[in-house]
Amino acid sequence: MLANTRTVRIEWGDCDPAGIIFYARYFWFFDASTTMLVERALGMKKIDYLKAFNFTGHPVVETRARFLLPTRFGDEVVIDSTVTAHGRSSFKVEHRLTLAGTLVVESSETRVWVGRDPGDPGKIRSQPLPAELVTRLTHGGG
Amino acid sequence: MLANTRTVRIEWGDCDPAGIIFYARYFWFFDASTTMLVERALGMKKIDYLKAFNFTGHPVVETRARFLLPTRFGDEVVIDSTVTAHGRSSFKVEHRLTLAGTLVVESSETRVWVGRDPGDPGKIRSQPLPAELVTRLTHGGG
Amino acid sequence: MLANTRTVRIEWGDCDPAGIIFYARYFWFFDASTTMLVERALGMKKIDYLKAFNFTGHPVVETRARFLLPTRFGDEVVIDSTVTAHGRSSFKVEHRLTLAGTLVVESSETRVWVGRDPGDPGKIRSQPLPAELVTRLTHGGG
Amino acid sequence: MLANTRTVRIEWGDCDPAGIIFYARYFWFFDASTTMLVERALGMKKIDYLKAFNFTGHPVVETRARFLLPTRFGDEVVIDSTVTAHGRSSFKVEHRLTLAGTLVVESSETRVWVGRDPGDPGKIRSQPLPAELVTRLTHGGG
Repeated sequence: MLANTRTVRIEWGDCDPAGIIFYARYFWFFDASTTMLVERALGMKKIDYLKAFNFTGHPVVETRARFLLPTRFGDEVVIDSTVTAHGRSSFKVEHRLTLAGTLVVESSETRVWVGRDPGDPGKIRSQPLPAELVTRLTHGGG
Repeated sequence: MLANTRTVRIEWGDCDPAGIIFYARYFWFFDASTTMLVERALGMKKIDYLKAFNFTGHPVVETRARFLLPTRFGDEVVIDSTVTAHGRSSFKVEHRLTLAGTLVVESSETRVWVGRDPGDPGKIRSQPLPAELVTRLTHGGG
Repeated sequence: MLANTRTVRIEWGDCDPAGIIFYARYFWFFDASTTMLVERALGMKKIDYLKAFNFTGHPVVETRARFLLPTRFGDEVVIDSTVTAHGRSSFKVEHRLTLAGTLVVESSETRVWVGRDPGDPGKIRSQPLPAELVTRLTHGGG
Repeated sequence: MLANTRTVRIEWGDCDPAGIIFYARYFWFFDASTTMLVERALGMKKIDYLKAFNFTGHPVVETRARFLLPTRFGDEVVIDSTVTAHGRSSFKVEHRLTLAGTLVVESSETRVWVGRDPGDPGKIRSQPLPAELVTRLTHGGG
């Protein structure tokens, strides 16, 4: 399946008074990692694939995370993200965050492909994943 | 069990280009709600109970969340938080976030009471919940 | 001139490993305070006044801030915001943040009223402040 | 003088409903850039130089910024940071952020080297810049 690996440095402004990362910050990292996965699958930046497929985004509808060890400012962590499943209008991603080879956080998320609701442009509703994306999710590569 | 309810207004800076809240922001709200729960249980602000019980914090070791509906800037949401279980050094909190009475997000988290590791002050490790907190968790009130 | 006062509680997740607020967080607070000022002036929430006046937002084009004293998690600070000047398509706001009556931060900002560029919808450009807003800025109230 | 250049990618979670970066996010980037400057000057990560010089941090006491053009998610921006002046216990940094060679943001900040107040460990107060840092600030390099 489709995968992406990148390195992120934890910064002072990501950390709380205990001197460790404030856990909510990890979801910023995971969101960007998923975007990079989709960008790789579609061969376009998000700002372009939103236009190309005329949709609003792929918000998270469910997530879970386990924080096994803390990280601190200055730590360079590696985030491995993999698409693990997909449906008609949704897909699942797993993120594994490691520090010097040790698993620190593992998280999974389910995202839905959404567009403006034709009956009410102020609302959003799910729409099918583009065929190009499904092909890449199924055959991997990237 | 111990509970806390508060109202939060979603702001422009909490929202993303889809015009809805960026999901990671919810964890900021939930963290503050849990702090308010413990403050109520102990009758002290966090900055004071950290000193009174000589510990570092109560970081999240596991969380999950379901995002059922989006919220937007200007929405006033209600967050109900309840301690649902506790162990020797950990406790669980459930958060229900509603907008005009409709459930929008539900999330649960497990937190561990941690202090400096006596053998290595650069590390943290779990320590027992204070008896005062256990009493309040068991007998509720607030 | 138009003014707004509100109380904000500094949270754990707003603070850094020095145990004090991470300064960038103040700009979140100031942005929301300015929104509340304009909401009061126009008698509408931002999500509604963006539609009513068909524009994109009022981004900051210049800001400065002095951080005189630190604040910590649990501190309840008061933010007083005042419109101090306005031009054809811009206005200035001053924010004074106090803790127990002591000035902690003072900041000013210049904002521009912007809409989609008719010649290039992917770009934004300034447009005149609505007459309703100018009237309220000039005659105060709120 | 001491300088540092790095590339940052603007992410979806950094942007607001106008589709452009939420300006407060820039201060996260600038804070990390200044840390990297000091790390380079001292040859140590921040977590190590805080211990080596026994101090609490170098918080911003004054900043200003001009936002000339917006940036969007997916933009890769370059941040050039330079120490422009220093006193006994403070130093100034200028940041220039460019996109494809065009200046987008320019900001300056004054930081103070602070430690625990010996008379009241709950407070912080300024202390002299370490001689090692002054030498590097004066003679540049990095």
